[in-house]
Amino acid sequence: MTDQTEQGYFTEENSADVVISRNAKASDARLAQVMDSITRHLHAMVKEVEPTQEEWLKAITFLTETGHKSDDWRQEFILLSDVLGVSMLVDAINNRKPSGASESTVLGPFHVPDAPERPMGSNICLDGKGERMLVKGRILDTNGAPVTGAKIDVWQTNDDGFYDVQQKGIQPDFNFRGVFRTGDDGAYWFWGAKPRSYPIPDDGPVGQLLGSLGRHPYRPAHLHYIIEAAGFETLVTHIFDPDDEYVHSDAVFGVKESLMAEFVHVADADRIAKVQAEGPFFEVTHDFVLAAET
Amino acid sequence: MTDQTEQGYFTEENSADVVISRNAKASDARLAQVMDSITRHLHAMVKEVEPTQEEWLKAITFLTETGHKSDDWRQEFILLSDVLGVSMLVDAINNRKPSGASESTVLGPFHVPDAPERPMGSNICLDGKGERMLVKGRILDTNGAPVTGAKIDVWQTNDDGFYDVQQKGIQPDFNFRGVFRTGDDGAYWFWGAKPRSYPIPDDGPVGQLLGSLGRHPYRPAHLHYIIEAAGFETLVTHIFDPDDEYVHSDAVFGVKESLMAEFVHVADADRIAKVQAEGPFFEVTHDFVLAAET
Repeated sequence: MTDQTEQGYFTEENSADVVISRNAKASDARLAQVMDSITRHLHAMVKEVEPTQEEWLKAITFLTETGHKSDDWRQEFILLSDVLGVSMLVDAINNRKPSGASESTVLGPFHVPDAPERPMGSNICLDGKGERMLVKGRILDTNGAPVTGAKIDVWQTNDDGFYDVQQKGIQPDFNFRGVFRTGDDGAYWFWGAKPRSYPIPDDGPVGQLLGSLGRHPYRPAHLHYIIEAAGFETLVTHIFDPDDEYVHSDAVFGVKESLMAEFVHVADADRIAKVQAEGPFFEVTHDFVLAAET
Repeated sequence: MTDQTEQGYFTEENSADVVISRNAKASDARLAQVMDSITRHLHAMVKEVEPTQEEWLKAITFLTETGHKSDDWRQEFILLSDVLGVSMLVDAINNRKPSGASESTVLGPFHVPDAPERPMGSNICLDGKGERMLVKGRILDTNGAPVTGAKIDVWQTNDDGFYDVQQKGIQPDFNFRGVFRTGDDGAYWFWGAKPRSYPIPDDGPVGQLLGSLGRHPYRPAHLHYIIEAAGFETLVTHIFDPDDEYVHSDAVFGVKESLMAEFVHVADADRIAKVQAEGPFFEVTHDFVLAAET
């Protein structure tokens, strides 16, 4: 009888308090805390917006369709979280880094855990498509010392803007994926192809919402990294091409100033010969700084 | 480039502002307003709760399962809205009544539009189950004058706690449903069976949530009404049995003080004879006051 004796019956005025007092017997204190916050914000939002019954039903229908669009291969609620900036916010909250350490960004749905370890300098472009690209740099600690034995897991789309797992049977397995391990100098280098911007899946309710909001579904060109090393926090991040047309309007808000890399076009014959390239290429030099484990 | 030039890139601090500025080209001003409120409250909630990545994924999974549980016959997102008090809040906002008018409550999912019109005094209990009940009263305006020609659409569960549409082929069609029309005196009366409390469907994610929150899934016994009359606002409401064990803890928060009715047990032989009952019965007398159309 808690809600009646303490709060009276539900009214427009006391609505959130009545619902929250009903949850007083929650077995889990964390769940109670989360539901308290959800309930307060949900009720405050409804009071601000004052939806009609038709608008409320439209919201119910949107959420239902978002669920129906989701299956083992497509997660429309994660897309919704992405385009509302919630995924990036959760990432930011969980990855506050000390000054000087490289910043994180969203993992995204296309990482695979079992990419092959390759020798430093390998070409992860297995389909031969795209503009030749050399990526290199060092893994450092916040004092600038090289990190030995860092595991660098890298992945990107091919030149058509698709990850290998989106085109099983069309792209070679593990196309544009590789795991590299640093030596004593903390250096890494590998060959790939200049990444391209690509749209997030936009044939579902989230794509329709983006359309209604006058927004495009594109992510600017980027490379994904997970960098792990003993004694350091794991870094999940991207690097971005600052010249990409979508770099200021990433559909999922993943871009940070510090994640910009320079994609330098190299046409100099000496440099081409020195790196044993077959012709002009893009060169990206980017160091990553790992935060010590706390 | 709006978000970058005006707000800078997305950070933990400016997150909601960056997302909202991205929606500036929304075609529909109402949609932009709604998304502004949703975004601010969603980001504020995430900042309050600080979910781990695992908790965030648990929320995504919960919403996905809620979508997957929903189909043409089951609407799990409406149940979620119900148990969070959102359905009642939307009802309250859309049905602010002038002083003296009867209050509304939720429609619920079991109304059918084509129930048969029956002569006043009919018995809507077609399966012969339950405790005999006479329901009567008047439809009035806010000055206390009777409303002529009011259409009263009434429905309730049978004595097993199920609506006819939940037990197609088991219950007679239109069991415990009827439409009645008032005469010059505004009076109505019909026979039914004393309603019972029943659980909302709790074999899905919303039922699991209720369980984790230490809440039962029951609605206290009630009768549903839709009352329509020319020149008046349509009233969607219930009456409740104040002695029901769940009346202070309705799973969907539908109870209001003014919606309590008295269920009087009548065993007096003269009264039984006068209303031509076959034996003792419950008698419920409840007037409804309609608000004039604005």
